[in-house]
Amino acid sequence: MGDNAAGDGGTSGGRSPDHHLLDEATRVSELARELQDSASALISRTWNEEQGLRQRALALESDLRRLQSSLASAFKSPSFDHRCAEKVEEEMFRAKFLLSDGDVASLLPSKDHGRFLKMFLGPVNVRATRKEVRLKVKEEYNSYRDRTAFLFLLFPSMLLFLRSWIWKGCFPALPVQLYQAWLLFLYTSLALRENILRVNGSDIRPWWVYHHYCAMLMALISITWEIKGQPDCASKQKGVQLFLVWAIMQGIAMLLQNRYQRQRLYTRIALGKAKRMDVVWGETAGVEGQLWLLCPILFILQGFEAYVGMLLLRTAFVGVVSEWQVVACGALLVLMAVGNFANTVQTLMVKSRFKAMKRSKSKHDLDLSSSPTYIEDDRKCR
Amino acid sequence: MGDNAAGDGGTSGGRSPDHHLLDEATRVSELARELQDSASALISRTWNEEQGLRQRALALESDLRRLQSSLASAFKSPSFDHRCAEKVEEEMFRAKFLLSDGDVASLLPSKDHGRFLKMFLGPVNVRATRKEVRLKVKEEYNSYRDRTAFLFLLFPSMLLFLRSWIWKGCFPALPVQLYQAWLLFLYTSLALRENILRVNGSDIRPWWVYHHYCAMLMALISITWEIKGQPDCASKQKGVQLFLVWAIMQGIAMLLQNRYQRQRLYTRIALGKAKRMDVVWGETAGVEGQLWLLCPILFILQGFEAYVGMLLLRTAFVGVVSEWQVVACGALLVLMAVGNFANTVQTLMVKSRFKAMKRSKSKHDLDLSSSPTYIEDDRKCR
Repeated sequence: MGDNAAGDGGTSGGRSPDHHLLDEATRVSELARELQDSASALISRTWNEEQGLRQRALALESDLRRLQSSLASAFKSPSFDHRCAEKVEEEMFRAKFLLSDGDVASLLPSKDHGRFLKMFLGPVNVRATRKEVRLKVKEEYNSYRDRTAFLFLLFPSMLLFLRSWIWKGCFPALPVQLYQAWLLFLYTSLALRENILRVNGSDIRPWWVYHHYCAMLMALISITWEIKGQPDCASKQKGVQLFLVWAIMQGIAMLLQNRYQRQRLYTRIALGKAKRMDVVWGETAGVEGQLWLLCPILFILQGFEAYVGMLLLRTAFVGVVSEWQVVACGALLVLMAVGNFANTVQTLMVKSRFKAMKRSKSKHDLDLSSSPTYIEDDRKCR
Repeated sequence: MGDNAAGDGGTSGGRSPDHHLLDEATRVSELARELQDSASALISRTWNEEQGLRQRALALESDLRRLQSSLASAFKSPSFDHRCAEKVEEEMFRAKFLLSDGDVASLLPSKDHGRFLKMFLGPVNVRATRKEVRLKVKEEYNSYRDRTAFLFLLFPSMLLFLRSWIWKGCFPALPVQLYQAWLLFLYTSLALRENILRVNGSDIRPWWVYHHYCAMLMALISITWEIKGQPDCASKQKGVQLFLVWAIMQGIAMLLQNRYQRQRLYTRIALGKAKRMDVVWGETAGVEGQLWLLCPILFILQGFEAYVGMLLLRTAFVGVVSEWQVVACGALLVLMAVGNFANTVQTLMVKSRFKAMKRSKSKHDLDLSSSPTYIEDDRKCR
C-alpha cells in the first residue's frame, strides 16, 4: 500500500482533487476494517489454541500429582527399589520444570497476584507471555538493586559526613526526612517489583518480601518521628545516628551480595540447577567460598540491627525519648533482625543438608558401582 | 491421557510396580516435552503473525498522516468542496478509531509507559492484549474511586467529630498522621492506576494525573508536619482543621461526580461518542443538566482549595507557624486549585465550542438541504 499516494491529489486526469482525496480516504478506511478483522480473528484463534494447550497442561499437572502420591506410597513398601525411584523422580522433575519454566508456563493461569499488587495496581495482569520479556524484568530488577545499593551507601554516609563537618553534630530535620522519604519510595518499589517477579515465576522467599513491607512501615513511621535539635541534640539524635551507621553497613553488604549472587545465579543456571527467574535475594548465599566472607558480615549486620532496635526500645522505656515512634521502630528492627537471622540459618541448613545428600549419594554411587549388584539393580530398572 | 492411571501401580501382570511407575513417569515427561514444543511453536507463530499485522497497521498510520496533510493543503484551495472534506474526515475518523480502539490497537507498540510507572514497577508491560481485560481494569478503577470517595468523606468527618466530642478541641497526632499516610497510599495507587489506564488506551487528561502527583507530595509533606498540642492548639491546628473540611467537600464532590460521570460515560459510549476506555475523570462534566449542579460545586471547591492554601501561606508569613511544611502545602494547594480551575474551564470551553459547532452544522445542513444546490453538491462528491 502507499504507492497510490494520497499526496498527489489533483494530478490524475478527469477526477477532481477532492474526489481523489475521498477515494484515498475510503481506501484507507477499508484497509483499516480489513486489518481489524484479521486482528480480531488472530486474537480469537490464538485464544482458542491457548485454551487447548491449557487443558493439556492442567491434565498433565493432575497426572503429576497422582504420580507423586503413588511414589510416596511405593516408598513405604519394603521391596521398593530406590534406584528406580530416583529415575522416576528425575522424569517427574523434568516434566515439572517444563510446566513451570517452559513456554507452557506463560499460558497457565498465573499465580495469584497477591493483595499487595491488587491494592496498588488494581486487577491488571503483570505476567509477561514471552520469556525474553520475563527475563528482561528479572535483569532490570538486578540492575535496579545494584544502583540502589550504591545510593543506600551514599546517602547515609553523606548525612553522617555533613553532620560532623557542616552541621556541627546536629542533624537538621529536612535532609534526614528526605532520606526517609527516599527509603519509603525505595522499599515500596522493591516490594512491588518483587511481587511482580513472583507472578512471573520467580521463587523469591516470601520472607524477603515481608521484610520489605516491615521496612516500608518503618520508613513511614520514621518520617513522622520528629528530629529534635538543640540543646543536647547529640543524645536525642542517637537513634538516627545508629540507624544511619546500620544503613551504611547494609549498603556494603548489599553491594557484596549483589555481585556474588549474580555470579552464583549464573553458575547455577549454567549447571541447570536454577531457573533463570529465580532470585537468590537476600542475605544467604554466595559463590562457594565467598560464602565464608558473606556469612559473618550478614550475621554481624543482623546482630547490629537487633542491637539498634534494642537501644531504641531502651531509650523509650528508660524515658529519654517517649515517642511511640521510637518503640515501633525499635520493635520492627528487632523483628526484622530475628526474621532475617531465622531465614539465613534456614537457607544454610537446606544448603548443608543438600550438600550432605549429594556427598552420601556420590558415596552410594561409588559403593554400588564397585559391587556387582549395582549393575544388576540398574538393569532391573530399565 | 490419565486413563492409564499412575495410581494402580502393582496390578498389571508381569511388570513390577516400580517399572510401572517409571513407565508412567516417562510417559508424563514425554507429554510435557510435546506440550512444550506445541506451546513454543504457538508463541512464535503468533508472534510472526502479529508482526505482519503490526507492519500493516504502521503502513496504514503513515497513509493516514499523509492523507491528513493533503487534506490540510486542499482546504487552502478556493475551489475546495467542504462537504467532500467532511466525508473524507469521516472516513479518516473511522480508520483512526479502528486503529486506536479496535483489536489492532493491542498489537501496536504500546504508548510509552512513562517515568512514573517505570520508577515504581520497572519495565513490566501492563497493557492487556484482550479488550475484555482492559475494560475490566477500567471498571475496577471506577469502583475503586467509588469506594475511595466514601472513605474520603468518612475519615475527615470522623476526625472532626472526635475532635469536638472526645479530644476536647485538640487533635492528637497519631490519628491525623494515619489519615495522612492513607492519603499518601491512596494518591500513589490512583496515580499508578491512572498511568496504567493511559497505557491501556484511556484518554484521561494529563493534568488529573499530575494533580495526583502534587497530592502525593502534599500528603508526604503533611506527614512530616508536626501536629502541635496544648497550649493553644486551636490556633496551631487551624490549618489541619481547614484541610479536613476541604477534604469532606472533596469527598462529596467525588461521590456526585462518580455517579454522574459513569452515567455520562455510558451515555456517550451508547451514542458512540466515547471509547469505553475513556475516563471522564475529574471535575468537569456530568450528564447534561446535572452539569449545572456539579459546576458550581466544583468551582466552590476549587475556590475553597485556593483559600485554604492562601491561609496556610499567610500563617507562615505572618509568623504564627514558621515551618517550611506549611509554606509548601499552601503553595501546592494553590497550584492544584489553579490547575483544576484552568482544566475545568478548558473542558467547558471545548464542550461549548463543540456544541456551537454541532448547532451551526445542523443549521448548515438544514440550509443546504432546503436549497437545490445541496443536492447538486452532494451528488458531486459521490
